[in-house]
Amino acid sequence: MGGMTGSSQTALDIRDARQRASFDPEALNAVLSAGSRDQKLRRRIVEVLSHDKRFDKTPKPYLSRAQQLERGLRIMRDLFAVVDEQGWGPEEYHTALSLVDEPLGLNLHEIAFTPVIQSQGSDEQQAEWLPKCYSHEILGCYLQTELGHGSNVQQLETTATYDAEKDAFVLHSGPVSATKWWIGALGVMSTHGVVQARLILDGQDKGPHLFIIQLRSLKDHSLMPGIEAGEIGPKVHGAMSAVDNGFARFNRVSIPRKNMLSRFARVEPPRSAGGSPQYVQPPHSKLSFGGMVYIRAQMIGSLAWQLARAVTISTRYLHMRRQFAGPDSTGSSQREEQVIQYPSVYMRVVPQVVNAIVFITAGKEMATLYRTMSGQLASGDTTLLAETHAISSGLKTYVSSNVVEGAETVRRAMGGHGFLASTGIGRIYATELPSTTYEGDNFILNLQVARSALKAFGAVVAAKSAQDAQSRLTPSSAYLSSLVPPPQLPLAAPQSTADWTTHASLLRLLSLRAALTVARVARLMQQGKQFGDLSWECVTLSEAVVEAFLAKVMVDALGKNGSLASGGGGSNEQKVLERIVTFHSHVLNFTGSRQIDAKAGVQFLLHRVQRALPALLELGIIAAPPPPTLSSLKNGASSLSSLDHLREALDEQARDLLPELVGITDAFGFSDYELDSVVSRDGGVYERMLAKAQADQTINIGSKADQERLYSDFIKPVLQRGERINAQKQGGAPKL
Amino acid sequence: MGGMTGSSQTALDIRDARQRASFDPEALNAVLSAGSRDQKLRRRIVEVLSHDKRFDKTPKPYLSRAQQLERGLRIMRDLFAVVDEQGWGPEEYHTALSLVDEPLGLNLHEIAFTPVIQSQGSDEQQAEWLPKCYSHEILGCYLQTELGHGSNVQQLETTATYDAEKDAFVLHSGPVSATKWWIGALGVMSTHGVVQARLILDGQDKGPHLFIIQLRSLKDHSLMPGIEAGEIGPKVHGAMSAVDNGFARFNRVSIPRKNMLSRFARVEPPRSAGGSPQYVQPPHSKLSFGGMVYIRAQMIGSLAWQLARAVTISTRYLHMRRQFAGPDSTGSSQREEQVIQYPSVYMRVVPQVVNAIVFITAGKEMATLYRTMSGQLASGDTTLLAETHAISSGLKTYVSSNVVEGAETVRRAMGGHGFLASTGIGRIYATELPSTTYEGDNFILNLQVARSALKAFGAVVAAKSAQDAQSRLTPSSAYLSSLVPPPQLPLAAPQSTADWTTHASLLRLLSLRAALTVARVARLMQQGKQFGDLSWECVTLSEAVVEAFLAKVMVDALGKNGSLASGGGGSNEQKVLERIVTFHSHVLNFTGSRQIDAKAGVQFLLHRVQRALPALLELGIIAAPPPPTLSSLKNGASSLSSLDHLREALDEQARDLLPELVGITDAFGFSDYELDSVVSRDGGVYERMLAKAQADQTINIGSKADQERLYSDFIKPVLQRGERINAQKQGGAPKL
Repeated sequence: MGGMTGSSQTALDIRDARQRASFDPEALNAVLSAGSRDQKLRRRIVEVLSHDKRFDKTPKPYLSRAQQLERGLRIMRDLFAVVDEQGWGPEEYHTALSLVDEPLGLNLHEIAFTPVIQSQGSDEQQAEWLPKCYSHEILGCYLQTELGHGSNVQQLETTATYDAEKDAFVLHSGPVSATKWWIGALGVMSTHGVVQARLILDGQDKGPHLFIIQLRSLKDHSLMPGIEAGEIGPKVHGAMSAVDNGFARFNRVSIPRKNMLSRFARVEPPRSAGGSPQYVQPPHSKLSFGGMVYIRAQMIGSLAWQLARAVTISTRYLHMRRQFAGPDSTGSSQREEQVIQYPSVYMRVVPQVVNAIVFITAGKEMATLYRTMSGQLASGDTTLLAETHAISSGLKTYVSSNVVEGAETVRRAMGGHGFLASTGIGRIYATELPSTTYEGDNFILNLQVARSALKAFGAVVAAKSAQDAQSRLTPSSAYLSSLVPPPQLPLAAPQSTADWTTHASLLRLLSLRAALTVARVARLMQQGKQFGDLSWECVTLSEAVVEAFLAKVMVDALGKNGSLASGGGGSNEQKVLERIVTFHSHVLNFTGSRQIDAKAGVQFLLHRVQRALPALLELGIIAAPPPPTLSSLKNGASSLSSLDHLREALDEQARDLLPELVGITDAFGFSDYELDSVVSRDGGVYERMLAKAQADQTINIGSKADQERLYSDFIKPVLQRGERINAQKQGGAPKL
Repeated sequence: MGGMTGSSQTALDIRDARQRASFDPEALNAVLSAGSRDQKLRRRIVEVLSHDKRFDKTPKPYLSRAQQLERGLRIMRDLFAVVDEQGWGPEEYHTALSLVDEPLGLNLHEIAFTPVIQSQGSDEQQAEWLPKCYSHEILGCYLQTELGHGSNVQQLETTATYDAEKDAFVLHSGPVSATKWWIGALGVMSTHGVVQARLILDGQDKGPHLFIIQLRSLKDHSLMPGIEAGEIGPKVHGAMSAVDNGFARFNRVSIPRKNMLSRFARVEPPRSAGGSPQYVQPPHSKLSFGGMVYIRAQMIGSLAWQLARAVTISTRYLHMRRQFAGPDSTGSSQREEQVIQYPSVYMRVVPQVVNAIVFITAGKEMATLYRTMSGQLASGDTTLLAETHAISSGLKTYVSSNVVEGAETVRRAMGGHGFLASTGIGRIYATELPSTTYEGDNFILNLQVARSALKAFGAVVAAKSAQDAQSRLTPSSAYLSSLVPPPQLPLAAPQSTADWTTHASLLRLLSLRAALTVARVARLMQQGKQFGDLSWECVTLSEAVVEAFLAKVMVDALGKNGSLASGGGGSNEQKVLERIVTFHSHVLNFTGSRQIDAKAGVQFLLHRVQRALPALLELGIIAAPPPPTLSSLKNGASSLSSLDHLREALDEQARDLLPELVGITDAFGFSDYELDSVVSRDGGVYERMLAKAQADQTINIGSKADQERLYSDFIKPVLQRGERINAQKQGGAPKL
């Protein structure tokens, strides 16, 4: 009677699924981690944190906002304590900071405050401030966004007016809309900040510049004179509730001249009394943009691993959950089917497993590209800036949108139990959700991608010869080579499932889709449309361009030598290009994982080609099959179309990966401490859900005494009222 | 310097936008509300609640889980207090219950516990229990889902074994997976419940049946003997945290025989000692399904209004927010552009405004259909059951998915400030999110829609004549008439934007898409695929079918007489069909709103046709335009394609609606109390954001003393440690 979903079944199911993998997860983990995360170090830190009560994650979902903030600050204090106890260095510290699994105000100190001084401070400023940043003798934040302005940084309203007499800047907020807002770590924690304000020099507006400011006293943490600041309140879904996002208003606050960050631009006092101050311009107007790219670049890999985490929880659960009879079960079978076996489940989950691998790869390449660029930038070389900006913008918008959507997709695939906070998967979505908006709203970044693509397309159109056109391409515009020489369209559509899985032809489809999507927008502009009117078209364009880019990265990574058929540009571009598309060589040498990666690669391409079908058909890249007729259906004469084969190929590829899925989640290498989920590595999910609910009863709904109070104060009066009403009535119509 | 986004600008912007509307929002509100919500009653209740401190919503986002639960129970108590103070009847009570804007355990009593007794209880059982339900002398829940089974109700594991000696059932949980789980209002509140358990009679398993059970003592609320119960813990995103979802295990709990709900099936004791008990079967095996349809049916309208609420907040904000220079602004313009004016913003928001209107309409029709069916069902007439089931399944899956996605889409359109809990829009998403899973996981419901569609398609294929085919169609399958007589494909594609806005042709496209999508799946089954292997294909199929249905509802609603060209079936079908597609007549008589509705109608159709492009092209319904060539782009000879015109038509329609948008949000009729957002009706959004952050400082991060403690306990030790480190070091490499 009933399915056999008892106590040990889920443990057996996950064990069996694990045994089905054809490769060694540890070895694949080494491949995925290489260049992305130090797995040995992580395990060492997890070992310490997971056995330390101070880093217990249990209380989190039960706490009030104020308690969440307090817990975050306590974790910060205890983190430094454990650093000292263990004698950890910076690498261990940063790894531990990520492993406490709680975004803290402290993170803003590390990824925003300190880096902006590192990149924008003069040598003297760095010498003065960085030691204090590193030792945390000061704690800082980065004050950019205002109530009235986020994306449009150029229109920030806070002003820093140079006062020659005092040789200082006067920082002032003015209108309500100039209030600094959203500033992470400002609400409670920070002693210092770097504030972005319009530099006013001799009545002239020089646009936004950066200034170091002390926000709170180092003696008693009270706000410095002229500063009003506070916390802005909870975020949606209770996300990042340990981060003290703050607001600040400045009322003519004086900042010494030396506190203007002056690596690239600076102000010199008037040479004589009554003279004018000197504004020394940056040597290159884009030099200060490098820092903007930094956070975006590191987001790619970070988001990819969060998707891997969500996928791990969901995939394992879907192997434990059994529901309904399987397609081939007979009446006598007692066992229900594992939910992962249903197409409407695995067709949602497998693409996300694949995405995680593809995005991890993209994250590594992005990191490499960024390092190269910033090395060059330090010496004033801006060659790679445009290319890095284009690629980081495209990847940021694409990866963040897809990771957020993917995390939610695999959570929903878990059905009802996916709504339980204790599965730990909802938190991933909530925490990563703002990534679609911060560091460049995705819809604004789409415009950047489109601008860059249209420029590259224009260069190809204007080229004098095929060779000339090819030579103008960079990695971010390589897909345009599909137009040179002009292709014969429509392409012959593959007529079998096997035909649909050729790397080269899938890549060609995605490249042509990207190229002709750009062409379509270019045509609209030729027809008189303004770029500003095409922001909606840029969404599709950006997606097409990024998918072609990612497809190329994956195909090249899977190719024997990782070399490209064509490239171009100078030796710098060539080097970058190689770095972007060359996968780490041990992938290629590791047969076990190679196989998985190859499958993931085909999956990625196929899935994207299927999603690109509308454009492929509309742009005439492939021809539509003839429609079925009612009579052909009646007499069974209708045959499968080329596109049916595409879907079948995708389904076959997905089924092929099914036995490997739990192995892949193992290869992502998450410990149960990191997952923080009732879906543990070793199963027993129902037992854990029940045990956790029982164990957490007090922290969840209060002590026995609290519960009795809930009854006597709130429930009992309602029941007694009902009794009174019924007693008075005695028959008659039901009454409220 | 800077944009003019100062104090009064947002108030001016919203006032101006309001004045641009071409119609009277109050009049349109009357149209939208008719048959859906009693706007006058709502306003009367809002007037009371919004001035009563007991129903203040401020604390909500700041509370701990236990505090949320307590607040929910307090609201329940106070709600009955205000009912008594005001002398409210049931209608006022239910309206107030929805207006407290907090899902409570009490809601489960009203929508699950009481209705199941109403529909499944015998006359005697109703007489015994319903007065207590109505007066709230008992508070109840509905115990169906178990840890191991949700969607597959037939495999629930809890048993109710009949014991002839005691003339009672023995309720027993058995394995961990049989634990009742997710049960709303069970964790803390309920005194009683209706539990679903397998009826075991004389060793025979009769499948799941329903039993009334007392869970807690009416004296002291302690759990009854043999019952273990508790709360299962927080849900993702902190959603519904005032609802006490619970678990329960039963250890041989005795239930008197008369507590088995026996409207349709019952157990009679053995006629003689040692004889067998009698199982009296329900007259119709599907009679007990009626209740399942109830919650789904009422979800449509409820979800639609929640989308309207999200749309109201987002749309108003997007008229207040200004960012970047407008497309036609010159250098001298001081004013930045309203964000709503950007295509990448309005193309996300306008479709959601339209959806809200379409879904409100669909919700009314669903409610009407349900009332008709349940009237018939009460007298044993099951004629409408299949049709109502198909339509409610399709609408539930489509509307819940689209409302959740829509609420998130318009939230993200708000950019950074959309992440602030105080905008009130994130809560809507979080609260409605589980609707995609409860009352039938959407992916399971897609299968039901597909089954019903394939059956209808089979009937059309098997029909002897066109007339015979037409006569087999019901409202849920009306789109199949597009295949009768067989259409000439591809259709001539519209060659201008005007051609793309004809109702009839858009409806034809959506009908053909639905019909041929069903045909495609039918073909796959002809080719040997099992239905169980096609669950992924059913997702697309279900969407196509529901969109064709909705399109027809809207087109008919807009037609002069609201009559259909063809219908069929008996007079029952005809009546239902008329009810479904006939819009409330005053829409048609009200010119002002008619205009808006007409625009919304075209928008809906156009938007859906655009989204359906992949299928329209793939299924050969329209032909792809010739691809542009590089050389045609070079010499500017390339012209716009038919599909470019479609996009242009959609854009034109959206732009046309822009001046009406704020008027439409007014027509939705939400008070500021209902919206609970810093985005108020009258603007001043930045001032409100700042003022709220300032006012809520204590509830948000604690009192002054708390804040000082945060510093001295957690921040100060970190700073002092940093100071020590730097003092010890004196130069050298930066240290952690």
